[in-house]
Amino acid sequence: MRIALGISYSGSAYEGWQSQLSGKTVQDRLEMALSRFAVQPIRVMCAGRTDAGVHALMQVVHFDTPLQRETSSWVRGTNAFLPSDIAVQWAQPVPDEFHSRASAIARRYAYVVLESPVRPSVEAGRVGWVYRPLDGDAMRQAALHLMGEHDFSSFRAAQCQAKSPVKTMSRIEISQRAGPGSRYWRFEFEANAFLHHMIRNIMGCLLAIGQGNHPPEWLAEVVAARRRDAAAPTFSPDGLYFLGPVYEERHGLPSRTAAYDWLP
Amino acid sequence: MRIALGISYSGSAYEGWQSQLSGKTVQDRLEMALSRFAVQPIRVMCAGRTDAGVHALMQVVHFDTPLQRETSSWVRGTNAFLPSDIAVQWAQPVPDEFHSRASAIARRYAYVVLESPVRPSVEAGRVGWVYRPLDGDAMRQAALHLMGEHDFSSFRAAQCQAKSPVKTMSRIEISQRAGPGSRYWRFEFEANAFLHHMIRNIMGCLLAIGQGNHPPEWLAEVVAARRRDAAAPTFSPDGLYFLGPVYEERHGLPSRTAAYDWLP
Repeated sequence: MRIALGISYSGSAYEGWQSQLSGKTVQDRLEMALSRFAVQPIRVMCAGRTDAGVHALMQVVHFDTPLQRETSSWVRGTNAFLPSDIAVQWAQPVPDEFHSRASAIARRYAYVVLESPVRPSVEAGRVGWVYRPLDGDAMRQAALHLMGEHDFSSFRAAQCQAKSPVKTMSRIEISQRAGPGSRYWRFEFEANAFLHHMIRNIMGCLLAIGQGNHPPEWLAEVVAARRRDAAAPTFSPDGLYFLGPVYEERHGLPSRTAAYDWLP
Repeated sequence: MRIALGISYSGSAYEGWQSQLSGKTVQDRLEMALSRFAVQPIRVMCAGRTDAGVHALMQVVHFDTPLQRETSSWVRGTNAFLPSDIAVQWAQPVPDEFHSRASAIARRYAYVVLESPVRPSVEAGRVGWVYRPLDGDAMRQAALHLMGEHDFSSFRAAQCQAKSPVKTMSRIEISQRAGPGSRYWRFEFEANAFLHHMIRNIMGCLLAIGQGNHPPEWLAEVVAARRRDAAAPTFSPDGLYFLGPVYEERHGLPSRTAAYDWLP
């Protein structure tokens, strides 16, 4: 039978999602824990790979197994073998045609950025950082140039394996929470799919605009250029959270986990 | 001249505040960074020592130095020598009679606790965890028994060095943020001073009451007993934040840092 799992993790201690020889990735730790619980090797397929340092509030994976277990046993049993910064949130049987990556009709990401004269400390690794004040209106105006279907080649890493650079951005929301002399900004993105480093490259551009280095219209030129060197440098992975994939409702999979309420 | 500094840190990687031979404490790292910036040994005195794993949004320290530096130089210069999970938030000259510990008229702490069937992962070390649902009304009713002046011996660790176990609790606020099938609880405490492990021992009792192991009135009996073994076990340091000391307004020291807005 095919099982889907919702996974949350802090990416700070790992070399990203995808399995590597070093074994220091989230996928390696998850497969090790699942295999120990199942007492047989289990390999998983994920909805969206995350870079080193990137966190996930709801990564979704699937795998096939002949084992019959209660879904609560998959959760508790696997968590017993996982390190404290990775946890299975839910388990659910799915039909064989469900595929964590291929069935996802959209993906959602959030960036949390601290705007402050002093760098983060308590939240180190959990938030990005800019020390110059950000102009929210300029960033929101610029973000409009990214909405809808575009060739996102200007935001694509050289090692990207996607078949096409054309993706459809369906939502960008920028909000802030004001503190004394500093602010936490939250950027939320939703698209049918993302190219490698696309969010981090978009963030580099939005923050350059927010800091007044470029006018909002510059982002339209960057998109039109379809060349990576037209855009700003890739922003730090600190503060980037994979909120999770979106599936059709008929699959009945949970769409949120507790940790959504943890983000500012 | 005497300088006061506001410090924020994540306690996860350290053996608490107070200097030890291992050198793996927040005080050791801070003194090392200050001494490198000042190019002379600097020792600091803090407002409130924190246990291993306990975070601080605003620890306050003071030290004496013959050096004349801009306050912004103390901040930026020291931060350049500090690890990413500790940062100086502000620096301010203070009169010689100011003392970070003795001048504090109150201290504030917050506990963030995740109530969820699944343990924390993204927020591991940043939140405490209970898997049984908490009864907020029962905990709030119980907390009333702690308000005002009491002998808090029942919540005092054996190694506590305080002269008197009599302290005055001036505020306990319990709030929650509801997510899907789980909640983040926030407990805020303010007292003139706290005994060693007092908050962690009080939390052990409040959570026992919140989970229905004892009625709210039990806390009055625990207080009256004045014996450590009358109370519940010490709760985990995960999720405990030192919000900072309170000083008289005439000192003009900042009372908040950005990270206050980071907590749920």
